This record gives sequence, structure tokens and C-alpha cells, in this order.
Amino acid sequence: MKFISFSRNNANSFGAVTDQGVVDIGARLNLTDLGAALRQVGIDAVKDLGVKSEADFGLSEIDAYRPVVADPDKILCAGLNYDEHVQETKRQRTERPTIFMRVAESQIGHEQAILLPPESDRLDYEGEIAVVLGKGGRRISEDKAYEHIAGFACYNDGSVRDWQMHTSQWGPGKNFEATGAFGPTLVTSDEIGETEALKLETRLNGQVMQHATTDMLIFSIPTLIAYCSSFITLKAGDVIVTGTPGGVGAKRNPPVFMKNGDVVEVEVSKLGVLRNHIRTE
Amino acid sequence: MKFISFSRNNANSFGAVTDQGVVDIGARLNLTDLGAALRQVGIDAVKDLGVKSEADFGLSEIDAYRPVVADPDKILCAGLNYDEHVQETKRQRTERPTIFMRVAESQIGHEQAILLPPESDRLDYEGEIAVVLGKGGRRISEDKAYEHIAGFACYNDGSVRDWQMHTSQWGPGKNFEATGAFGPTLVTSDEIGETEALKLETRLNGQVMQHATTDMLIFSIPTLIAYCSSFITLKAGDVIVTGTPGGVGAKRNPPVFMKNGDVVEVEVSKLGVLRNHIRTE
Repeated sequence: MKFISFSRNNANSFGAVTDQGVVDIGARLNLTDLGAALRQVGIDAVKDLGVKSEADFGLSEIDAYRPVVADPDKILCAGLNYDEHVQETKRQRTERPTIFMRVAESQIGHEQAILLPPESDRLDYEGEIAVVLGKGGRRISEDKAYEHIAGFACYNDGSVRDWQMHTSQWGPGKNFEATGAFGPTLVTSDEIGETEALKLETRLNGQVMQHATTDMLIFSIPTLIAYCSSFITLKAGDVIVTGTPGGVGAKRNPPVFMKNGDVVEVEVSKLGVLRNHIRTE
Repeated sequence: MKFISFSRNNANSFGAVTDQGVVDIGARLNLTDLGAALRQVGIDAVKDLGVKSEADFGLSEIDAYRPVVADPDKILCAGLNYDEHVQETKRQRTERPTIFMRVAESQIGHEQAILLPPESDRLDYEGEIAVVLGKGGRRISEDKAYEHIAGFACYNDGSVRDWQMHTSQWGPGKNFEATGAFGPTLVTSDEIGETEALKLETRLNGQVMQHATTDMLIFSIPTLIAYCSSFITLKAGDVIVTGTPGGVGAKRNPPVFMKNGDVVEVEVSKLGVLRNHIRTE
């Protein structure tokens, strides 16, 4: 099953995308956000509504995509999780995952503009795969981790590189408003095999800039879930962004940064294409 | 005016503390959390209710303190913001503030237990002053920053040092559940002069471990507000934790870590004493 979050007629909602169109699950639950639905009624009830209901309107009738989960309680991002990216940043592999955080307001949806802020001209892409939790928990073991996953989506962890490197802590450059693109859809985990390697590709104006497969992740998705849930209770709707492969713009020679009018795409097998344009704020 | 967040008769609420007792503002607004109130009705309306209402019960009739703001949208923490602490960590001053994030669920209230997790024996204190935003905004200038402050409270940015140093990014060690103590009260900014230097002291089992005054901050409170609001819109109820002075346990010789039964206090002039005990989880 595939879920989207959207706006339509000046209201926010979310729903399932079926062959017949969009089942407006938000309207049925009287909720505007998928994260709230996952926390309050759970992934199984949300899926049930998607399966058992008739489509309410066509996909072309939504006004805009919103971030797949616009209201996660937490967004935990892995850095340096592909060897080629570790090497291009001239860092070393670490024994534990590198985790930083994003705030929900830094996110946008599919086909929304990623904003190039006036504070910088070093806006870079990072194609990634996001995992959305369907069931929360603390100290989740790796072998149980898949049971906690609702599904997967493409993510562009847009990064303002000079602000990321102001100090040792990356947060400021990772949290500019409208830099984290998340979509187009959440594809539920039952559509993807546990051991299946997904193929990730990032394109800037049509040119392939990054490509990798998830079997190249240094810390696997179950390892990330186990590690993060060691320190904090994960909730349904929480997002874990799994890291970007080599080929980021800042480490190219010469460096490539995104500018007004550019189009950036993150494509992941089975998850679709997340497409955003860049707009000077 | 002073605000607390509390639980009483198995319900969460918040209110003003007056000479007569506690004005249960949450009950009047039908809200359980101060952050939601600041976002929805604003600091002036919340203060008005505190001024105009009669006390509902005595302070001794609450069951427990909760974090002053239990539901902030964001908690932005400054690291390395006092010279003595920069020096003891053998780091250098940076040109911009070092900012990392905490999640709301890592917080506890006054007199609650700070939990020593089984994952570590390196739990450390960090006495700090927290600023709570009363009015949100983006790109707030330093000279307007004070207008955006609701008030101040003591904060203990409890840190699991080995997890903080697993990688370059401090988040995991800064987000163990029940390690961030916040309270006892929010003292509104009108009770504290803009240019007044507050005195901060951290005590472990009665022994003074840290002391400083806010005029020693490398990046002032207005600078922190201006910097953080450059990348993301701050909201009412957001928390900025301003950094810890020298004297942390991990950098002592020999190092001092907190253990089961220890009592840690953060006292700030005009803000009171935040007291917590340590309990092995």
C-alpha cells in the first residue's frame, strides 16, 4: 500500500493511493496528519481504512504533496553511512552510527520548492531512504526491528554546507526551512522484502550524481533502529533517514551547489521518484 | 510571574504559582501543556489568567513537577558557550554558536529521577539556563530578541558521555530518556532585567561543581536567538538551552560521574533550585 500526505481545498490530509485514486483516510479519522494517525490508531487500522474504503478523488485532484509524515515526533538522521561518502568527506568509519536530528518544519513534500536561503550559496543535495516507524518501542533488538517499520520513502536531506560546518555539530546546516524533501509516497514494508537491496539514485538536472544500493549501508536499517531506540523511545510516525551515498555536490571537483531553477530527483526502486526544484528564497 | 507544569490526580496541567497557591491555567484553557498554551493563546493571555484568577490549590497539593515546558516544538542546545568549558574539553572557540538538539521525551521535571541507563556508567551533569520563547519568529534580530522571550528556567543537560562521543555528533548521549531536567519554574522575563547577569551554580551531593554568571556566555542569549532563528522559524514554547560552564564531571581529575542515589542541584539567581536525584534504571 502507498500513502501520501497532501493539501486539497485549503485543508491538510493524508490517504492511500489505489488504482482508483486517493482514499482520504484523514477525513475518515478526523485527523490532518499521518504521524498523528500512526500514533493514535496504529498502522494496521490506517491500512485497513485504505483497503476497505472507496477512493474519494483522483490523485490529480490534490493541490500539493506535503512531506509523507509532516508531523513526526522525531527525525533521526544517519550521517556517513556509505563508505564512498565517508571517504569523500575524509573521515573515518566509526564503530557506532553517526546520528543527528532534523525538525519537522525543515521538511517539504514532493514537487515543492527546496528553498535556497539568503544566508548561503552552498545548498547541496543528499539522496537517501527514509524509514517510517509503524510501531514504537525502546531497546528494540535488531532481529525484531522490521516489525516496527511502517514503510519507506525517498528523502532529500538538503544541506546548507557552510552552516553545517560552522562548528562540529551539523544541526544548523541540516535544518534550514524547506530543505528536507520527503516523498512522494510511503510504501509499506509488506511491499518490500526484508533482505531486498533497494537501488538509490540522485539526479541534478537529469545528471546522475549519486547511486548506491542499500546493501552498501555501513549500519543497516535494523542496526539504526536498535541503536536509536537504545537512548530514546521511538514512536510510530518517527522517521529514520538512513544516510547518503558518495557524490554529494560539496565534495566534487569543482564543487556543485544547487541554484535557483535546478531540478533535483531522488529515485529509489519501488519507492518512486521524489522531484523538487530549487527556488531562491 | 512564575509558571509550573505538574501532574495532580493523574492528570497533567500547568499553572501560575502565586502567594496564594497554584492557579490551574491548564484547566481554564482545557490544555494539559504550557507549550501548547504559548503556541495557541500566547504568553500574554496565559499571564493574564495567572494574574486575574484565584489560586485553586496549594503548591504542596501537586503530585509531581513535570518539565516546565513538556511539549516544546524544539529544544535547541548551545554547547561550548563558556570559555572554561571550551578549555577543559580542549576545543577551540568557534565563530558561530555550537547547536545540537534534544527531544522533548528526554526531559523530566524538578524532583524527578534522572535515570542512569544500563548502557553506560558515564552520566554527567551540565547546569545551564534555559530560555523559553514567548513569541516565535524567523530571522529575529539581536536587538529584538528579548521581546521574544517568555522567561527563564534552570536546566540540567544530563549527558551520557560515552554515547555523546561515539561519533562527531553528540545527539545520542544528549537524548537518553529522563536525563534532561527542566525546572522548577518558568520565571517570566519581566522579573529579570535585560542586562542582569544571572548566577549559575551546580552542586553534586552538596558540593559546588560549576559556577558562572551569564555575562560570561560567549554567545549571548540574543545572539543564540538570532542565530537559531536564521535557519528555522522559532515558535512560542521553544526552548534554547544556553550552555554549561566549566567543571563538568567528565573533565575532572579523576573524573566524576553520577551514580544511583546522588543528588544534583542547579541553582540560578531569581530562578530557584532545580533538584534531582539519580536512579539506576
